[in-house]
Amino acid sequence: MCPKVSYFLSLWLNSAIFYAPSAMGYSISANDGENMFTLDKVLKEDTYCLGDFPLCRLLLSKDANYPWFILVPRRSGVTEICDLSEADQEKFMQESVFLSRLLKRLFDADKLNVAALGNVVPQLHVHHIVRYKSDDAWPSPVWGYAPATPYGDQRYSTLIGQLTALSEYPDFRFAQAPSGP
Amino acid sequence: MCPKVSYFLSLWLNSAIFYAPSAMGYSISANDGENMFTLDKVLKEDTYCLGDFPLCRLLLSKDANYPWFILVPRRSGVTEICDLSEADQEKFMQESVFLSRLLKRLFDADKLNVAALGNVVPQLHVHHIVRYKSDDAWPSPVWGYAPATPYGDQRYSTLIGQLTALSEYPDFRFAQAPSGP
Repeated sequence: MCPKVSYFLSLWLNSAIFYAPSAMGYSISANDGENMFTLDKVLKEDTYCLGDFPLCRLLLSKDANYPWFILVPRRSGVTEICDLSEADQEKFMQESVFLSRLLKRLFDADKLNVAALGNVVPQLHVHHIVRYKSDDAWPSPVWGYAPATPYGDQRYSTLIGQLTALSEYPDFRFAQAPSGP
Repeated sequence: MCPKVSYFLSLWLNSAIFYAPSAMGYSISANDGENMFTLDKVLKEDTYCLGDFPLCRLLLSKDANYPWFILVPRRSGVTEICDLSEADQEKFMQESVFLSRLLKRLFDADKLNVAALGNVVPQLHVHHIVRYKSDDAWPSPVWGYAPATPYGDQRYSTLIGQLTALSEYPDFRFAQAPSGP
């Protein structure tokens, strides 16, 4: 294993051991309870998988222009928030609020952009994007503004380190081995 | 009173009488309980006020390119959904889900775009936009895509007629005299 990959892996696993013992040995399954959930292939291609809240999978966009996260409820065939059951709407709100507050705190955001669009990828996914008045697209929305900038190893590593704070959500389960750049 | 204005007013009031007797005589106040809520002046300028859910004011964008609605929680100083209290988060979700389902049904939407951006107007406001695969901007987001198209009298009147269905929400209060184009 190359040193860089080893570094990321140890950092991630150490954080998981320290903050979330229950995460050890967990691997994200395609079968989530009664739902056969499969992540859309475009979302899979364009993101790193960070882990699972009780309802939503948490993804990090590969576009390093902004700290850009995506929540995907692990429910098959759902395209709108209003298609979720009442119990899932409640879970979604809790997870979205937790993530939003965490992002504000970790990244000292000027603004969050929280959006369920889905014109290109119908599978329900909700963007949570940290915006700064100094970012290139400000005040425009980010979609279609600039080509994606890949994460470098150092930047990705720093971000993953910050995200150990996800363990503050009692039932958050880290992905077993998040794949970096 | 000119016939057109009279027509819209009678249509609106008739619907309010028929569907929501409690709405009669209601006028939207700036003082909402303990909160001194004032609608942002840009939002006020760019929209028609349709009425109030228990938490959110409901606005219609003056851009007729899309059926474009905006929910504004009547809480002063709030810029993010995650800044709402837990009770207000719950109300917001209920009102957003009701509105979303209504819009899907009334307008036979191909997709909804539900988004809290706020880069230009910080006051928390959440767009609920009906999208069609045939609309000009599809599949792009609508912001900044095309100049706003004003509503004509007939189109506005038809829309207001459809929106009497808002009375299906038990506590929705219609604005006393929504101003048309």
